[in-house]
Amino acid sequence: MRIPAPLERVIGALSRLPGIGEKTATRMAFTILRESHNYATEFSEALAALHSVIRHCADCHSIAESEQCTICLDPNREKNALCVVEGIPDLMAIEQTGEFRGVYHVLHGTLSPVQGIGPDDLTIASLLQRLEAGIFSEVVLATNVDVEGDATALYVGRLLSRFDGVAVSRIATGVPLGGDLEYLDRGTLANALRGRRPV
Amino acid sequence: MRIPAPLERVIGALSRLPGIGEKTATRMAFTILRESHNYATEFSEALAALHSVIRHCADCHSIAESEQCTICLDPNREKNALCVVEGIPDLMAIEQTGEFRGVYHVLHGTLSPVQGIGPDDLTIASLLQRLEAGIFSEVVLATNVDVEGDATALYVGRLLSRFDGVAVSRIATGVPLGGDLEYLDRGTLANALRGRRPV
Repeated sequence: MRIPAPLERVIGALSRLPGIGEKTATRMAFTILRESHNYATEFSEALAALHSVIRHCADCHSIAESEQCTICLDPNREKNALCVVEGIPDLMAIEQTGEFRGVYHVLHGTLSPVQGIGPDDLTIASLLQRLEAGIFSEVVLATNVDVEGDATALYVGRLLSRFDGVAVSRIATGVPLGGDLEYLDRGTLANALRGRRPV
Repeated sequence: MRIPAPLERVIGALSRLPGIGEKTATRMAFTILRESHNYATEFSEALAALHSVIRHCADCHSIAESEQCTICLDPNREKNALCVVEGIPDLMAIEQTGEFRGVYHVLHGTLSPVQGIGPDDLTIASLLQRLEAGIFSEVVLATNVDVEGDATALYVGRLLSRFDGVAVSRIATGVPLGGDLEYLDRGTLANALRGRRPV
Protein backbone atom coordinates (compact mmCIF):
# COMPACT_ATOMS: atom_id res chain seq x y z
CA MET A 1 0.00 0.00 0.00
CA ARG A 2 1.39 3.39 -1.01
CA ILE A 3 0.90 6.07 1.64
CA PRO A 4 -0.25 9.36 0.02
CA ALA A 5 2.54 11.97 0.02
CA PRO A 6 0.95 14.58 2.35
CA LEU A 7 0.20 11.86 4.90
CA GLU A 8 3.77 10.62 4.72
CA ARG A 9 5.03 14.19 5.15
CA VAL A 10 2.80 14.73 8.21
CA ILE A 11 4.06 11.45 9.70
CA GLY A 12 7.65 12.53 8.98
CA ALA A 13 7.15 15.93 10.62
CA LEU A 14 5.47 14.44 13.70
CA SER A 15 8.27 11.85 14.06
CA ARG A 16 10.76 14.67 14.58
CA LEU A 17 9.01 15.82 17.75
CA PRO A 18 10.55 14.72 21.09
CA GLY A 19 9.44 11.28 22.25
CA ILE A 20 7.45 10.49 19.09
CA GLY A 21 8.39 7.39 17.08
CA GLU A 22 7.10 6.49 13.65
CA LYS A 23 4.29 4.30 14.99
CA THR A 24 2.94 7.02 17.27
CA ALA A 25 3.34 9.60 14.50
CA THR A 26 1.30 7.38 12.16
CA ARG A 27 -1.45 7.02 14.75
CA MET A 28 -1.46 10.80 15.25
CA ALA A 29 -1.59 11.47 11.51
CA PHE A 30 -4.62 9.20 11.15
CA THR A 31 -6.26 11.02 14.04
CA ILE A 32 -5.76 14.32 12.21
CA LEU A 33 -7.18 12.71 9.06
CA ARG A 34 -10.25 11.45 10.93
CA GLU A 35 -10.87 14.80 12.58
CA SER A 36 -12.63 17.63 10.77
CA HIS A 37 -10.97 19.48 7.91
CA ASN A 38 -11.09 22.61 10.12
CA TYR A 39 -8.79 21.10 12.70
CA ALA A 40 -6.05 20.37 10.13
CA THR A 41 -6.50 23.84 8.61
CA GLU A 42 -6.26 25.64 11.95
CA PHE A 43 -3.26 23.52 12.98
CA SER A 44 -1.60 24.29 9.64
CA GLU A 45 -2.22 28.03 9.89
CA ALA A 46 -0.94 28.19 13.47
CA LEU A 47 2.26 26.41 12.40
CA ALA A 48 2.74 28.75 9.46
CA ALA A 49 2.35 31.79 11.72
CA LEU A 50 4.68 30.45 14.40
CA HIS A 51 8.01 31.69 13.06
CA SER A 52 6.69 34.79 11.35
CA VAL A 53 4.90 36.14 14.44
CA ILE A 54 7.13 34.93 17.25
CA ARG A 55 10.65 36.20 17.81
CA HIS A 56 13.07 36.46 20.70
CA CYS A 57 12.97 39.36 23.15
CA ALA A 58 15.98 41.61 22.59
CA ASP A 59 16.60 41.77 26.36
CA CYS A 60 15.80 38.39 27.90
CA HIS A 61 15.67 36.13 24.80
CA SER A 62 12.27 34.74 25.78
CA ILE A 63 9.53 34.63 23.15
CA ALA A 64 8.02 37.94 22.12
CA GLU A 65 5.64 39.30 19.52
CA SER A 66 7.45 42.66 19.38
CA GLU A 67 10.99 43.90 20.11
CA GLN A 68 10.57 43.09 23.80
CA CYS A 69 8.56 40.39 25.59
CA THR A 70 5.53 41.11 27.77
CA ILE A 71 7.53 40.54 30.97
CA CYS A 72 10.34 42.94 30.06
CA LEU A 73 7.72 45.51 28.98
CA ASP A 74 5.65 45.12 32.17
CA PRO A 75 6.17 48.26 34.38
CA ASN A 76 5.10 46.28 37.45
CA ARG A 77 8.02 43.85 37.34
CA GLU A 78 11.01 44.49 39.60
CA LYS A 79 13.71 45.57 37.20
CA ASN A 80 16.57 44.96 39.63
CA ALA A 81 16.02 41.19 40.06
CA LEU A 82 17.09 38.76 37.34
CA CYS A 83 16.33 35.05 37.08
CA VAL A 84 18.59 33.04 34.74
CA VAL A 85 16.92 29.96 33.21
CA GLU A 86 17.86 27.34 30.59
CA GLY A 87 14.75 27.55 28.45
CA ILE A 88 11.37 29.17 28.00
CA PRO A 89 9.42 26.23 29.52
CA ASP A 90 11.47 26.75 32.72
CA LEU A 91 10.56 30.45 32.67
CA MET A 92 6.88 29.49 32.29
CA ALA A 93 7.12 27.04 35.20
CA ILE A 94 8.63 29.74 37.46
CA GLU A 95 6.01 32.26 36.34
CA GLN A 96 3.31 29.83 37.38
CA THR A 97 4.61 29.79 40.96
CA GLY A 98 4.02 33.56 41.20
CA GLU A 99 7.09 33.62 43.49
CA PHE A 100 9.37 35.76 41.33
CA ARG A 101 8.50 39.35 40.41
CA GLY A 102 11.68 40.32 38.57
CA VAL A 103 12.71 39.76 34.96
CA TYR A 104 14.39 36.81 33.25
CA HIS A 105 17.34 35.84 31.13
CA VAL A 106 16.96 32.74 28.93
CA LEU A 107 20.27 30.98 28.18
CA HIS A 108 18.71 28.71 25.51
CA GLY A 109 20.60 25.66 26.67
CA THR A 110 23.32 24.55 29.06
CA LEU A 111 27.04 24.10 28.73
CA SER A 112 27.67 20.58 27.45
CA PRO A 113 31.18 19.64 26.34
CA VAL A 114 29.83 16.23 25.22
CA GLN A 115 27.41 17.88 22.79
CA GLY A 116 29.93 20.57 21.91
CA ILE A 117 27.88 23.38 23.46
CA GLY A 118 30.17 26.09 24.83
CA PRO A 119 29.53 29.55 26.38
CA ASP A 120 29.31 31.17 22.93
CA ASP A 121 26.34 28.97 21.99
CA LEU A 122 24.35 30.36 24.91
CA THR A 123 23.21 33.95 25.57
CA ILE A 124 25.95 34.49 28.17
CA ALA A 125 27.58 37.49 26.42
CA SER A 126 24.21 39.23 26.39
CA LEU A 127 23.74 38.38 30.09
CA LEU A 128 27.04 40.06 30.98
CA GLN A 129 26.05 43.09 28.90
CA ARG A 130 22.80 43.40 30.84
CA LEU A 131 24.68 43.25 34.14
CA GLU A 132 27.18 45.86 33.01
CA ALA A 133 24.33 48.36 32.79
CA GLY A 134 24.37 48.22 36.63
CA ILE A 135 20.61 47.90 37.09
CA PHE A 136 20.50 44.45 38.74
CA SER A 137 21.13 43.92 42.42
CA GLU A 138 20.07 40.26 42.52
CA VAL A 139 20.57 37.30 40.18
CA VAL A 140 18.95 33.90 40.80
CA LEU A 141 20.53 31.02 38.88
CA ALA A 142 17.56 28.74 38.12
CA THR A 143 19.08 26.21 35.75
CA ASN A 144 18.04 22.58 36.19
CA VAL A 145 19.48 20.66 39.11
CA ASP A 146 21.45 18.14 37.02
CA VAL A 147 25.06 17.84 35.89
CA GLU A 148 24.75 20.30 32.98
CA GLY A 149 22.51 22.71 34.87
CA ASP A 150 24.80 22.76 37.90
CA ALA A 151 27.91 23.21 35.75
CA THR A 152 26.27 26.08 33.87
CA ALA A 153 25.16 27.76 37.12
CA LEU A 154 28.69 27.40 38.50
CA TYR A 155 30.22 28.87 35.32
CA VAL A 156 27.77 31.79 35.14
CA GLY A 157 28.08 32.37 38.92
CA ARG A 158 31.85 32.78 38.56
CA LEU A 159 31.48 35.24 35.68
CA LEU A 160 29.01 37.29 37.72
CA SER A 161 31.25 37.45 40.82
CA ARG A 162 33.04 40.44 39.28
CA PHE A 163 29.92 42.59 39.53
CA ASP A 164 30.03 44.26 42.95
CA GLY A 165 26.73 44.79 44.71
CA VAL A 166 25.01 41.95 42.87
CA ALA A 167 23.78 39.10 45.11
CA VAL A 168 24.02 35.88 43.09
CA SER A 169 22.07 32.87 44.38
CA ARG A 170 21.19 29.36 43.24
CA ILE A 171 17.68 27.88 43.71
CA ALA A 172 17.47 25.57 46.72
CA THR A 173 17.75 21.80 46.38
CA GLY A 174 16.13 19.36 48.80
CA VAL A 175 13.14 17.13 49.38
CA PRO A 176 10.25 18.07 47.03
CA LEU A 177 6.75 18.68 48.46
CA GLY A 178 5.06 15.36 49.18
CA GLY A 179 8.48 13.72 49.06
CA ASP A 180 8.66 10.42 50.90
CA LEU A 181 12.15 10.09 52.37
CA GLU A 182 11.96 6.30 52.04
CA TYR A 183 11.64 6.45 48.27
CA LEU A 184 13.81 9.51 47.60
CA ASP A 185 17.08 9.11 45.72
CA ARG A 186 20.24 9.25 47.82
CA GLY A 187 21.58 12.42 46.16
CA THR A 188 18.47 14.48 46.89
CA LEU A 189 18.37 13.31 50.48
CA ALA A 190 22.08 14.07 50.95
CA ASN A 191 21.48 17.55 49.50
CA ALA A 192 18.53 18.09 51.84
CA LEU A 193 20.67 17.16 54.85
CA ARG A 194 23.59 19.33 53.80
CA GLY A 195 21.21 22.25 53.22
CA ARG A 196 19.36 21.87 56.55
CA ARG A 197 18.11 25.09 58.14
CA PRO A 198 17.41 26.06 61.78
CA VAL A 199 13.73 25.79 62.72
CA MET B 1 3.61 35.74 30.82
CA ARG B 2 1.30 35.87 27.87
CA ILE B 3 1.86 33.05 25.36
CA PRO B 4 1.74 34.39 21.76
CA ALA B 5 -1.47 33.35 19.98
CA PRO B 6 0.04 31.11 17.24
CA LEU B 7 2.06 29.23 19.86
CA GLU B 8 -1.05 28.77 21.99
CA ARG B 9 -2.95 27.50 18.94
CA VAL B 10 -0.18 25.03 18.07
CA ILE B 11 -0.18 23.78 21.68
CA GLY B 12 -3.98 23.45 21.55
CA ALA B 13 -3.88 21.50 18.27
CA LEU B 14 -1.14 19.16 19.51
CA SER B 15 -3.06 18.54 22.77
CA ARG B 16 -5.92 17.03 20.77
CA LEU B 17 -3.70 14.22 19.47
CA PRO B 18 -4.00 10.83 21.20
CA GLY B 19 -1.84 10.47 24.30
CA ILE B 20 -0.65 14.10 24.28
CA GLY B 21 -1.33 16.25 27.33
CA GLU B 22 -0.84 20.00 27.58
CA LYS B 23 2.66 19.70 29.06
CA THR B 24 3.91 17.41 26.27
CA ALA B 25 2.20 19.60 23.68
CA THR B 26 4.00 22.65 25.08
CA ARG B 27 7.35 20.86 24.90
CA MET B 28 6.60 19.84 21.29
CA ALA B 29 5.56 23.36 20.32
CA PHE B 30 8.83 24.76 21.67
CA THR B 31 10.73 22.10 19.72
CA ILE B 32 8.99 23.27 16.54
CA LEU B 33 9.85 26.87 17.46
CA ARG B 34 13.51 25.98 18.02
CA GLU B 35 13.75 24.04 14.74
CA SER B 36 14.23 25.80 11.42
CA HIS B 37 11.49 27.88 9.85
CA ASN B 38 11.46 25.32 6.98
CA TYR B 39 10.35 22.52 9.25
CA ALA B 40 7.29 24.43 10.48
CA THR B 41 6.48 25.51 6.92
CA GLU B 42 6.70 21.97 5.50
CA PHE B 43 4.69 20.59 8.41
CA SER B 44 2.07 23.29 7.86
CA GLU B 45 1.83 22.64 4.11
CA ALA B 46 1.53 18.88 4.57
CA LEU B 47 -1.30 19.41 7.05
CA ALA B 48 -3.09 21.80 4.70
CA ALA B 49 -2.86 19.27 1.85
CA LEU B 50 -4.00 16.34 3.98
CA HIS B 51 -7.76 16.65 3.56
CA SER B 52 -7.72 18.15 0.09
CA VAL B 53 -5.53 15.40 -1.42
CA ILE B 54 -6.62 12.34 0.56
CA ARG B 55 -10.07 10.83 0.32
CA HIS B 56 -11.67 7.48 0.97
CA CYS B 57 -11.63 4.70 -1.65
CA ALA B 58 -15.14 4.23 -3.05
CA ASP B 59 -14.78 0.44 -2.71
CA CYS B 60 -12.84 -0.39 0.43
CA HIS B 61 -12.96 2.98 2.31
CA SER B 62 -9.20 3.00 2.83
CA ILE B 63 -7.25 6.18 1.99
CA ALA B 64 -6.92 7.04 -1.69
CA GLU B 65 -5.68 9.87 -3.86
CA SER B 66 -8.23 9.13 -6.60
CA GLU B 67 -11.64 7.44 -6.80
CA GLN B 68 -10.13 4.08 -5.81
CA CYS B 69 -7.13 3.21 -3.62
CA THR B 70 -3.91 1.69 -4.93
CA ILE B 71 -4.80 -1.76 -3.59
CA CYS B 72 -8.26 -1.88 -5.22
CA LEU B 73 -6.70 -0.62 -8.49
CA ASP B 74 -3.84 -3.17 -8.40
CA PRO B 75 -4.53 -5.86 -11.07
CA ASN B 76 -2.26 -8.31 -9.21
CA ARG B 77 -4.44 -8.49 -6.11
CA GLU B 78 -6.81 -11.43 -5.74
CA LYS B 79 -10.22 -9.88 -6.25
CA ASN B 80 -12.14 -12.78 -4.69
CA ALA B 81 -10.61 -12.54 -1.22
CA LEU B 82 -11.72 -9.81 1.20
CA CYS B 83 -10.20 -8.84 4.54
CA VAL B 84 -12.40 -6.81 6.89
CA VAL B 85 -10.49 -4.50 9.27
CA GLU B 86 -11.42 -1.84 11.81
CA GLY B 87 -9.13 0.90 10.58
CA ILE B 88 -6.45 1.88 8.10
CA PRO B 89 -3.54 1.31 10.55
CA ASP B 90 -4.77 -2.34 10.85
CA LEU B 91 -4.80 -2.62 7.06
CA MET B 92 -1.23 -1.29 6.95
CA ALA B 93 -0.13 -3.80 9.61
CA ILE B 94 -1.61 -6.70 7.61
CA GLU B 95 -0.02 -5.40 4.39
CA GLN B 96 3.36 -5.43 6.12
CA THR B 97 3.05 -9.18 6.77
CA GLY B 98 2.75 -9.83 3.01
CA GLU B 99 0.46 -12.73 3.98
CA PHE B 100 -2.75 -11.45 2.36
CA ARG B 101 -3.02 -10.88 -1.40
CA GLY B 102 -6.71 -9.98 -1.65
CA VAL B 103 -8.49 -6.66 -1.13
CA TYR B 104 -9.76 -4.96 2.01
CA HIS B 105 -12.84 -3.45 3.57
CA VAL B 106 -12.31 -0.80 6.25
CA LEU B 107 -15.18 -0.58 8.76
CA HIS B 108 -13.87 2.69 10.30
CA GLY B 109 -14.63 1.58 13.83
CA THR B 110 -16.29 -1.17 15.82
CA LEU B 111 -19.75 -1.61 17.21
CA SER B 112 -19.84 -0.03 20.64
CA PRO B 113 -23.22 0.37 22.37
CA VAL B 114 -21.44 2.23 25.21
CA GLN B 115 -20.16 4.91 22.81
CA GLY B 116 -23.39 4.79 20.80
CA ILE B 117 -21.74 3.35 17.69
CA GLY B 118 -24.17 1.11 15.80
CA PRO B 119 -23.98 -0.73 12.45
CA ASP B 120 -25.07 2.41 10.56
CA ASP B 121 -21.99 4.30 11.81
CA LEU B 122 -19.70 1.73 10.18
CA THR B 123 -19.33 0.84 6.48
CA ILE B 124 -21.36 -2.36 6.91
CA ALA B 125 -24.05 -1.49 4.32
CA SER B 126 -21.31 -0.94 1.75
CA LEU B 127 -19.73 -4.28 2.73
CA LEU B 128 -23.00 -6.12 2.09
CA GLN B 129 -23.32 -4.33 -1.24
CA ARG B 130 -19.84 -5.51 -2.26
CA LEU B 131 -20.72 -9.11 -1.35
CA GLU B 132 -23.99 -8.96 -3.27
CA ALA B 133 -21.97 -8.47 -6.45
CA GLY B 134 -20.99 -12.14 -5.99
CA ILE B 135 -17.26 -11.69 -6.64
CA PHE B 136 -15.94 -12.73 -3.24
CA SER B 137 -15.44 -16.37 -2.26
CA GLU B 138 -13.56 -15.69 0.98
CA VAL B 139 -13.90 -13.12 3.76
CA VAL B 140 -11.41 -12.85 6.65
CA LEU B 141 -12.69 -10.95 9.68
CA ALA B 142 -9.57 -9.23 11.01
CA THR B 143 -10.99 -6.90 13.64
CA ASN B 144 -9.03 -6.55 16.90
CA VAL B 145 -9.18 -9.41 19.38
CA ASP B 146 -10.96 -7.49 22.14
CA VAL B 147 -14.57 -7.17 23.29
CA GLU B 148 -15.62 -4.64 20.60
CA GLY B 149 -13.61 -6.32 17.84
CA ASP B 150 -14.99 -9.76 18.66
CA ALA B 151 -18.56 -8.47 18.89
CA THR B 152 -18.19 -6.71 15.53
CA ALA B 153 -16.71 -9.83 13.89
CA LEU B 154 -19.59 -11.90 15.30
CA TYR B 155 -22.18 -9.40 14.03
CA VAL B 156 -20.63 -9.11 10.55
CA GLY B 157 -20.09 -12.87 10.39
CA ARG B 158 -23.80 -13.47 10.98
CA LEU B 159 -24.79 -10.97 8.29
CA LEU B 160 -22.46 -12.68 5.82
CA SER B 161 -23.79 -16.19 6.53
CA ARG B 162 -26.57 -15.53 4.03
CA PHE B 163 -24.09 -15.39 1.13
CA ASP B 164 -23.73 -18.95 -0.15
CA GLY B 165 -20.30 -19.98 -1.39
CA VAL B 166 -18.49 -17.39 0.71
CA ALA B 167 -16.08 -18.85 3.29
CA VAL B 168 -16.05 -16.49 6.29
CA SER B 169 -13.18 -16.86 8.76
CA ARG B 170 -11.81 -15.05 11.81
CA ILE B 171 -8.05 -14.48 12.33
CA ALA B 172 -6.52 -17.01 14.74
CA THR B 173 -6.00 -16.19 18.41
CA GLY B 174 -3.29 -17.81 20.51
CA VAL B 175 0.18 -17.36 21.90
CA PRO B 176 2.08 -14.58 20.05
CA LEU B 177 5.55 -15.26 18.65
CA GLY B 178 8.12 -15.14 21.45
CA GLY B 179 5.26 -15.55 23.93
CA ASP B 180 6.36 -16.90 27.28
CA LEU B 181 3.52 -19.07 28.65
CA GLU B 182 4.54 -18.18 32.20
CA TYR B 183 3.85 -14.47 31.69
CA LEU B 184 0.91 -14.74 29.28
CA ASP B 185 -2.55 -13.61 30.38
CA ARG B 186 -5.01 -16.35 31.26
CA GLY B 187 -7.43 -15.52 28.45
CA THR B 188 -4.83 -15.81 25.67
CA LEU B 189 -3.55 -19.09 27.08
CA ALA B 190 -7.09 -20.50 27.37
CA ASN B 191 -7.72 -19.45 23.74
CA ALA B 192 -4.49 -21.11 22.61
CA LEU B 193 -5.51 -24.36 24.32
CA ARG B 194 -9.05 -24.31 22.93
CA GLY B 195 -7.63 -23.61 19.45
CA ARG B 196 -4.99 -26.38 19.59
CA ARG B 197 -4.20 -28.08 16.30
CA PRO B 198 -2.90 -31.56 15.46
CA VAL B 199 0.88 -31.61 14.81
